[in-house]
Amino acid sequence: MSVTAAEGFVAAGCHAGIKRKRHDMALLATEDGRPVATAAVFTQNRFTAPPVLLSRARLADGGGRAAAVIVNSGNANAGTGKPGLRDAEAMAGAAAGALGIDAAHVLVCSTGIIGTPLPMDRILPAAPKLAGRLSRDGGADAAKGILTTDTHPKEALVRGSNFTLGGMAKGCGMIAPNMATMLAFLTTDADVEGDQLRNILKEAVDRTFNTLNVDGATSTNDTVILMASGRRGKPDLAEFADAVHALCEDLTLQMARDAEGMTKMVALAVTGAASDAEARAAARNIAENNLVKCSWHGGDPYWGRLLAAAGSAGVAFDADKASVSYGGILVAEAGAPVAHDEAAVAAHMKQERIEIEVALGLGTGTARTIGIDLGPGYIKENVKTS
Amino acid sequence: MSVTAAEGFVAAGCHAGIKRKRHDMALLATEDGRPVATAAVFTQNRFTAPPVLLSRARLADGGGRAAAVIVNSGNANAGTGKPGLRDAEAMAGAAAGALGIDAAHVLVCSTGIIGTPLPMDRILPAAPKLAGRLSRDGGADAAKGILTTDTHPKEALVRGSNFTLGGMAKGCGMIAPNMATMLAFLTTDADVEGDQLRNILKEAVDRTFNTLNVDGATSTNDTVILMASGRRGKPDLAEFADAVHALCEDLTLQMARDAEGMTKMVALAVTGAASDAEARAAARNIAENNLVKCSWHGGDPYWGRLLAAAGSAGVAFDADKASVSYGGILVAEAGAPVAHDEAAVAAHMKQERIEIEVALGLGTGTARTIGIDLGPGYIKENVKTS
Repeated sequence: MSVTAAEGFVAAGCHAGIKRKRHDMALLATEDGRPVATAAVFTQNRFTAPPVLLSRARLADGGGRAAAVIVNSGNANAGTGKPGLRDAEAMAGAAAGALGIDAAHVLVCSTGIIGTPLPMDRILPAAPKLAGRLSRDGGADAAKGILTTDTHPKEALVRGSNFTLGGMAKGCGMIAPNMATMLAFLTTDADVEGDQLRNILKEAVDRTFNTLNVDGATSTNDTVILMASGRRGKPDLAEFADAVHALCEDLTLQMARDAEGMTKMVALAVTGAASDAEARAAARNIAENNLVKCSWHGGDPYWGRLLAAAGSAGVAFDADKASVSYGGILVAEAGAPVAHDEAAVAAHMKQERIEIEVALGLGTGTARTIGIDLGPGYIKENVKTS
Repeated sequence: MSVTAAEGFVAAGCHAGIKRKRHDMALLATEDGRPVATAAVFTQNRFTAPPVLLSRARLADGGGRAAAVIVNSGNANAGTGKPGLRDAEAMAGAAAGALGIDAAHVLVCSTGIIGTPLPMDRILPAAPKLAGRLSRDGGADAAKGILTTDTHPKEALVRGSNFTLGGMAKGCGMIAPNMATMLAFLTTDADVEGDQLRNILKEAVDRTFNTLNVDGATSTNDTVILMASGRRGKPDLAEFADAVHALCEDLTLQMARDAEGMTKMVALAVTGAASDAEARAAARNIAENNLVKCSWHGGDPYWGRLLAAAGSAGVAFDADKASVSYGGILVAEAGAPVAHDEAAVAAHMKQERIEIEVALGLGTGTARTIGIDLGPGYIKENVKTS
């Protein structure tokens, strides 16, 4: 189900030979091959991969409509220059040919290693193979085809009163606010389009995927695409927006739990900042601080490192007003330790999900982020890429 | 020698019992107990430790003159609130009493864990002990007294035509541009004071200590102090400034080589940025990127991660103009791979000191930074603090 749960979509996945054994390609398309309302959010990294350049341009040229997305994993087609753009175009062309549709309606996503040309001799022949396998039951196979270092597929489903929303995602490293090496494909049978669809997606992405910070690294290929077939008519927009948010939240938490080397997921709230923007800056500086992340890995409630990270975030900060709580238990107030139930804090730190609040005591600005610990597993995953 | 190499200074170190076994306190003083011209650069972290607040205020009130610095390691007296400020005052008072001088001329530095009150019952009795041991040969002992996770003392010496400059430093983690958990104490017998002394020190710190980035973390206690006894008269100012720079550079490289878990030290140059400030921002984003740091640990010339970090640094970036070289060998140009001598690059990556240039091809802005790899050693050092 998942990405094919909503009416009007078919999908497939396959092993094209980019990776040694696992699935490495996926195709998502409308059932009738016609373009439907499509919104997307792309990476903000200026070292933008060719498939992102291509998909962004085609969506803009096509007035926010698309009929298919072809995806490969194992190679990001990033850092590949002009030949990389030609490869992305050829990849879209192969899908269009196999589907018998206009290539202008085909989007492309790639994820994997940077700086190596796509193996087109494997990718092009896979397009007809994928097209031949497209089905209403192909969602699970497609979800496998988009993975990189993920340990398992990530799928989600939300049913509204008169619509269905389904989705699949990949991502577990190179993840910071403003997305990451993450791809997410969402589909719905609701009838929403244009700015409405774009705004609903953008806001959901901001509140979910963009709050996850695995390692502070922003990738070249991040893409979230939402396609709406419109088959079941107009939804209540508020209900629909909530559903998109819930779907993205579900996928975000799946990504957090599968983060490279992750042993602790930290729900970090920064409150009392001078503004929401300052709260976000402080939260980011805390969640990306390696000393903080190491303390999370060790289950050590070392609040001083959190305040030191907040104090160097370039935001208003007054130690005499700052406090820190772990699992709702106040451990530091006015920038100094306070007596507390240490056994309860230690028990909380042993959990896989830790809750921390850093209260700056200055204003009403708040931000929430999901941080990940830093342990040997992350390093093992990222020391060698080949 | 080192911090007591210049005429007019005495020093001592001892074990006060803050740490279990190793030296944990030091005292540096003028030979005659009189205040001399003193310049200092302090942490920019807004979560500022009480000893920094005290030393900054005393130097300002005293017109840039001081007679002694008392230092403890093992406890940063940070995150200790108003009681922490009283402890810092008492620590200065104990040194002043033991030396028979005005407490207003005594500066204080602390380094170590955050959020735990100083063990004053150990620190106060150590002051007369240190005062009794002060000698012209006490530099080496003092250099031991200021260490935390450092594996060895860091001392340096520069002789000018008519002056001597000596120094000692500590620091190997929580180190980012804008200093770090680092302390450095420099002395000279040259006669330089006021703004001249401050400006020379500030510029040297900017060009040396502030280019080292171990983990992107800025500490609460960073302090560099330069005391000038003036005993040997006025130096040539240009020669003196060069000597201060050389001394700081020497100590910076010693700190880099002793960085927590360090196996590779990376001399990273960003060139061709739109401005020097943008080059610094890009260099910092690269040097703090965990995926980049892991690739350094693995000796992997994964240039795509460097450009992805530059592309997300919030600076002008055009992939078509960007290139990357390892050890002077061009591996990527116009944002795409180029044929190169892979064996030579692999050999370069095996060295302890790697040289990398990221050329953005946009303007004349340049920056240099010293980055450190991220491997299991760093995590092991920082997972548990107690």
